[in-house]
Amino acid sequence: MFGNDYNDEITDLIGELDEAESAEVLRKMNKEDQENVRRLMEYDPETAAGIMSTEFIAIHSHNTVMDTLKFLQSHTDDDTDYYLYVTDPQGYLKGVISLRHIVSSTFDTPIMDIINPDVITVHQDDDQEAVAHQFEKYGFIMMPVVDDENRMIGVISFDDIMEIIQEENTEDIHHLGGLNKEERVDSTFKESVNSRLPWLIVNLGTAILAAFVVSQFESTISKVVTLAAIMPIITGMGGNAGTQSMTLIVRGISLEELTGENAWSVFRKEVSVGMVDGIVVGMIMGLLAFVFEGNVVFAAIAGIAMFLNMLMANTAGFVIPVILKKLHIDPALASTVFVTTVTDVLGFFFFLGLATVVLPYIA
Amino acid sequence: MFGNDYNDEITDLIGELDEAESAEVLRKMNKEDQENVRRLMEYDPETAAGIMSTEFIAIHSHNTVMDTLKFLQSHTDDDTDYYLYVTDPQGYLKGVISLRHIVSSTFDTPIMDIINPDVITVHQDDDQEAVAHQFEKYGFIMMPVVDDENRMIGVISFDDIMEIIQEENTEDIHHLGGLNKEERVDSTFKESVNSRLPWLIVNLGTAILAAFVVSQFESTISKVVTLAAIMPIITGMGGNAGTQSMTLIVRGISLEELTGENAWSVFRKEVSVGMVDGIVVGMIMGLLAFVFEGNVVFAAIAGIAMFLNMLMANTAGFVIPVILKKLHIDPALASTVFVTTVTDVLGFFFFLGLATVVLPYIA
Repeated sequence: MFGNDYNDEITDLIGELDEAESAEVLRKMNKEDQENVRRLMEYDPETAAGIMSTEFIAIHSHNTVMDTLKFLQSHTDDDTDYYLYVTDPQGYLKGVISLRHIVSSTFDTPIMDIINPDVITVHQDDDQEAVAHQFEKYGFIMMPVVDDENRMIGVISFDDIMEIIQEENTEDIHHLGGLNKEERVDSTFKESVNSRLPWLIVNLGTAILAAFVVSQFESTISKVVTLAAIMPIITGMGGNAGTQSMTLIVRGISLEELTGENAWSVFRKEVSVGMVDGIVVGMIMGLLAFVFEGNVVFAAIAGIAMFLNMLMANTAGFVIPVILKKLHIDPALASTVFVTTVTDVLGFFFFLGLATVVLPYIA
Repeated sequence: MFGNDYNDEITDLIGELDEAESAEVLRKMNKEDQENVRRLMEYDPETAAGIMSTEFIAIHSHNTVMDTLKFLQSHTDDDTDYYLYVTDPQGYLKGVISLRHIVSSTFDTPIMDIINPDVITVHQDDDQEAVAHQFEKYGFIMMPVVDDENRMIGVISFDDIMEIIQEENTEDIHHLGGLNKEERVDSTFKESVNSRLPWLIVNLGTAILAAFVVSQFESTISKVVTLAAIMPIITGMGGNAGTQSMTLIVRGISLEELTGENAWSVFRKEVSVGMVDGIVVGMIMGLLAFVFEGNVVFAAIAGIAMFLNMLMANTAGFVIPVILKKLHIDPALASTVFVTTVTDVLGFFFFLGLATVVLPYIA
């Protein structure tokens, strides 16, 4: 009923059906497909085994190129692969050879002479994102999947990987934007509300925390009301700087470009960039505040609070995703809410706190 | 000096050198490579022609499988491809055949009988992102590139496409986070400042606009200082809801999941989700404001302002990226700043405006 290569996709589909429905679908498949799908269903769908196909071509190393071509001509379906795998009778993987090598070798070449015995494999339990990184790194078309005893149990091909790369990217983009990874433009109304409302409630909690900080300074604000107009500029700009830093770090972690070796120098650079951006934006802020209020002390605290908040924003933008990664929490998922909490709470605290200290000079 | 398949990458590299440096690199290459690279340098590096390799295997349709295998054995380098192309003497593309088909056909099969004459091609000027979509859609390993007269001029392979997909994703993620597409964790301090400071200055402009709105209501705030503590919650939550909606739409545009057909129903859903999220968060906000200030009218305007701002946030989150796309501006690049401007300006205006109207009841 289904082409062999679709067994992995059928398995994912069946995983989303209820028991009666999946039994019905399985009943309609031929025996071989049924067994393959049942076996695939036992694996976690986000691992190498969950995305592999169990159909691959295993050949003998003692044959020649001519023998192998004849074998392919007689044992073929629509899905002859671009790599042939050499396995021993126990299923252990002994080597790999590409069709490219076979067709460019003379007919009497022994397969043994042209196989590559150093096969790069993935383990059945490897996470699909790690598998995708292997494909990107090596530019492979196919990779063999092995079990705990190093026996070959399936192959993963690049077209499955392209889908996974897009899925993982969508997941990161959605998490950074406060959406579930599953939501799509054609999700139902109910799915969308379920995807977004919990995030909004969490953010409401952090916004209330920031409001609580402001409320502690109400007597200061009542004496210098312009503080209320300026303070959202300071928290907002901190948020922007923190988001920049966090975005770079979260993406760098995803692409495996942020490593143990460069972490320290990247951290120092983030802090330096926060300082310089903070000095520039802080000076503009101070100038604007002076134009607005005509008070040098007022201008100075606006500039200093902006500088401090942007410095802290860049620091948090590095530290928060790195800590989340260490704790095995997806940095894309939780960084945004923590970074904005830091920039809101500290922004209000720096600005209104400084204003309270210098109140006699600005009121 | 270089493998043929690297000519496209060498070309990109030379594009980044100055004239003296690139002349030096070209001088060190053999004549054939030099010509290929010079030709590739004339193309826009982000088009199909800019990413293609000019090395491909063209065969004759009147040969048999055996003739072709012998041809491959004698005319091979390291880079025999997975597809062979049938061209006529003028270079017009007549068909394609995969190595899989060749090795699974008997030796006496005429190539003519097994070629696929309906070749899916890309045009030399096609944008690399559009080419990547073709690869994803069809699961191809290679695609031929044709010129204006439909002559075959090169091939693009899936491993170049994987890189492009990741590049395009990084570009979207960076733009949404307010970074240049080129910045990486290992960029220099100067590159990072240049990537971020212009965005921060633009954002400062919009933050000042929002502060100006607040300043128009200073006399209201001076009478009810708690407004200053509550107002950032309303703008912040609007920003969060707008970011959710905008993220979904920007990603939907990138993945080509938002189309002319479903745009209207997606828009209605976004507005509905904004309403429901606005009602839920607005009610919580009203309740909190009542606990905080003990005034029903104060609680009501906080709740209503929150509802209105979240509704407008979701509307803007849809409308802004869609308009930018229509104007051929990258939605990821400019949506964030517009959406937050809307939610900040409207959030302050709704809340402080309502407070001014009902001032006698809350002061």
